[in-house]
Order: sequence, then structure tokens, then C-alpha cells
Amino acid sequence: MSSPEEAIVYGVNAALAVGRYRPQSILRVFHEQSRRLTVAPLLKIAAAHHRPYREVSSEELERIAKTVHHEGIVVITEPLPLYSFDMLLKRLTTRSFLVALDSVGNPHNLGAILRSAAWFGADAVLMPEEPGQASLSAAAVRIAQGGAETVPCVPVPNMAEALNRLREQKIAVIAADQHAERSVIEKPLHRPCCVVLGNEQTGISPETRKACPISVTIPGNGRIESLNVAVSAGIIMAMIK
Amino acid sequence: MSSPEEAIVYGVNAALAVGRYRPQSILRVFHEQSRRLTVAPLLKIAAAHHRPYREVSSEELERIAKTVHHEGIVVITEPLPLYSFDMLLKRLTTRSFLVALDSVGNPHNLGAILRSAAWFGADAVLMPEEPGQASLSAAAVRIAQGGAETVPCVPVPNMAEALNRLREQKIAVIAADQHAERSVIEKPLHRPCCVVLGNEQTGISPETRKACPISVTIPGNGRIESLNVAVSAGIIMAMIK
Repeated sequence: MSSPEEAIVYGVNAALAVGRYRPQSILRVFHEQSRRLTVAPLLKIAAAHHRPYREVSSEELERIAKTVHHEGIVVITEPLPLYSFDMLLKRLTTRSFLVALDSVGNPHNLGAILRSAAWFGADAVLMPEEPGQASLSAAAVRIAQGGAETVPCVPVPNMAEALNRLREQKIAVIAADQHAERSVIEKPLHRPCCVVLGNEQTGISPETRKACPISVTIPGNGRIESLNVAVSAGIIMAMIK
Repeated sequence: MSSPEEAIVYGVNAALAVGRYRPQSILRVFHEQSRRLTVAPLLKIAAAHHRPYREVSSEELERIAKTVHHEGIVVITEPLPLYSFDMLLKRLTTRSFLVALDSVGNPHNLGAILRSAAWFGADAVLMPEEPGQASLSAAAVRIAQGGAETVPCVPVPNMAEALNRLREQKIAVIAADQHAERSVIEKPLHRPCCVVLGNEQTGISPETRKACPISVTIPGNGRIESLNVAVSAGIIMAMIK
């Protein structure tokens, strides 16, 4: 149903966002009968762009989406446009903020972070090209609820190097570190900045950590080991002035 | 493997928290060989309480846990002790804060909220006895990463009534409402309070909403429809002074 030149997007909000933000990239739309009203705006856009859409059974959707989590709607699209780090560097302003993921492994966490990044208006999410980093899969795109359409995920070969280049452009690079002394709640962050979040189990790697001159924590009460990385990301983004 | 007098807890942090917070309720422990070091503290506690533990295959664990998400460890325990709303009312102080869920349907969201509630030291999470509310399932307990052991989930037959009783005790009742005018970032909350979060799709019900004299929002930039409910909960809890 899809080749390397095609991507699958499923989930109501993720699919509607494709129609809203890149209608020209829609190739085909499949939906369940019960979803017709909810996805009507998307079907209208597909029709306006002369792209086929078809009502199918839940089982056929499951086969197309390769998951039961399709929420009754699948859009076959061109892949999301690539956005390079160099391109991003040229577009940064004094009001920019970025989120850098140092190998966040769970696609649900990646999706939730993208959703928050979109909500708070991040310029981009940086992701290392490493096997430990969750990729922008259809599952992550669904969880992002449209966030993947408005916040570019920018791959970087080496996170520490990328952060150093941001610092050369006067972007404050800030590690989210449970053992930091500075509370992000007591002392909010200022733009332009880049917030760095680490792996769910191992945190930020030592090499990446060295590229972060500032570190902040979200104070807790010690009853459990840690906050979820997507919740931490949301709290820190909320504290960027 | 378990009867109504037994509950299943799986996942490393959730299982370790059982050992830490209610060791006497451990009945049996099953683990994979590869997890032996990680769960050693739990095995030691089980031994000290004369409870059996056994190394089993991944497949057997899957059968016991009824899921692949066991992370190599399953504890069969007595059910979490019940905690009534009346009991909670008697224990509230001027430093208390509560989280009330008005039918949060996704067990992952419930688990993530419990984890944050534990991190920030909530007194309890109130949950309506309604079919739309996710129950404290083993999946939710795993996602809570130990949070379910330190923050009681208190069932309430009617959320609006429960909130009214909190207000009689001078607890500020605050709705998380995307359309509220007051930004929780600009104007933090004060204890004692109860933060009310609504369903993922439909938000807070009109009846519950009427029981909330205050409402707050987390300002976004309009690119997507909403923040995830667990991320919203985390941000609001972080803003309680």
C-alpha cells in the first residue's frame, strides 16, 4: 500500500493535520463509514486536490495501516519534507526555541513531545541518527496529534556537535537533568534556547552532557525515581518565557 | 495465576516499588534470569517475608502477566488497599493537593498522571466510578513506575458531589480548561487545592465543571488542538506552590 515515496498517516487528528498543513502531499485517503463526518474536512481537501478517497471496512483499514490504532482513518501521503540542520540554523531567531532528544527510545514519548512542541511553538525537534532514538514512525505521528505536521524533526549525526553549533549562534543549551541544582519552576528559561532531554533509562549521554553549559531540574519529593520524559519536556517547555 | 484476592504487578519500577512500599503484601515473585540483578532488592525483600520467588522463561512470564510488557518481572500481590473518600477528607491538611480525573479513559494517561502525582507529592487521585474512567489496571500501574504505590486512587461515585465536599473543607477546586482565561504559568496555584482534568476527547463534563469555581489554561500557540492530558496534568502540578 506504500513505497519509500509514500508514508502512512493514521489517527483522526494526525490525518486532519495533513489536510490542514500539507494538502498537496495527500495521495489517497481511506476511512471507515463511521468516521465520515469527523474527517469530512480532509475528504473535501482531497477532492479539491483530485486525490481519491474511499470508504473501507475496519479490517481493510487495519491491513492498510498495519495496526489496530488507525482510529478509522488512514491517509497515504508523500513523506514529510526533509529539514536539514543547516537549514534550521539559518532560520533561527532570538525568539526561537528547540527541543533536542538524546535518544528518546519510546515512539509514544517522541509523539507526546512533538505534540507539546507544537503546542508551545518550538522551531524544531532535533533527533540523533542513532539506533536508540525512536524514529518518526506512523505510531509517533498519531500520538503527536498533528504536531508532526507543524514542528520539523531534524536529524543530526552527532548531538554534541549540533549543540555546539547552536551555542556558537548564542542559543542557550540547557540539559534537563534530575540532579541539577537549578529548578526550572523557580527560575524560568529565556529564548533563544534549546532544551536537551535524555533517554528514558540512561538519561543524557556524557558526551552530549558536556555540550550543555546549563542544567535544570523539576523538583520532586523523592517518592519515585523520575518523571516521564514527555511530561518533563512539557513542563520545561511551559517554563520558557 | 491470580484470583480477586490477588493482583498482578509487572514492570521493573512498579515491582520494585511494591517491595519498597508494601513488602508484606507480596505473595509470589517471578522473574527472568536477565533481570536478576535489577530486581535483587525485591527478591531479598520477598525472601525476608518468606514469600516464594522463581526464575522463569520470558514466555512463562508473558503467560502470567497476560502481556508482553512485563519487563522481565511479575509480582503477585494482595490488592492495593482501598482508600475511601471519607478517609481522605479526614486526612487533608492546608498543604494538601489532589488530582481529580473526570473520566480519563486511556490507562497510559492514568498511569502517567499517577507517576507525576507521586513525583509532586499529591495526596490522592480521585477517579469517578464510571465506565469512561480507566481503571487502575496492571498496565496503568506499570506506566506509573511506582506511583500507584505512593498515591492512593480514591473512587468517588459522583465527581461533582466530591468536589463540593472538598470546597466545604476550603480546598480550592480548579478546572484545567483550554478555554479558561487564567494562565497557570503566569499565575501559579496555591495549596490546598484539587486540580480537575477531563476526558481526552470531551473534556470535563458540564456537571463537574459547575463544581469548579476556578479554571486555568496552559497557553499554546494554536497550531494544534490540545495538549495531552497527562502532560497538562504534569504542568499544572508543577505550578502548585
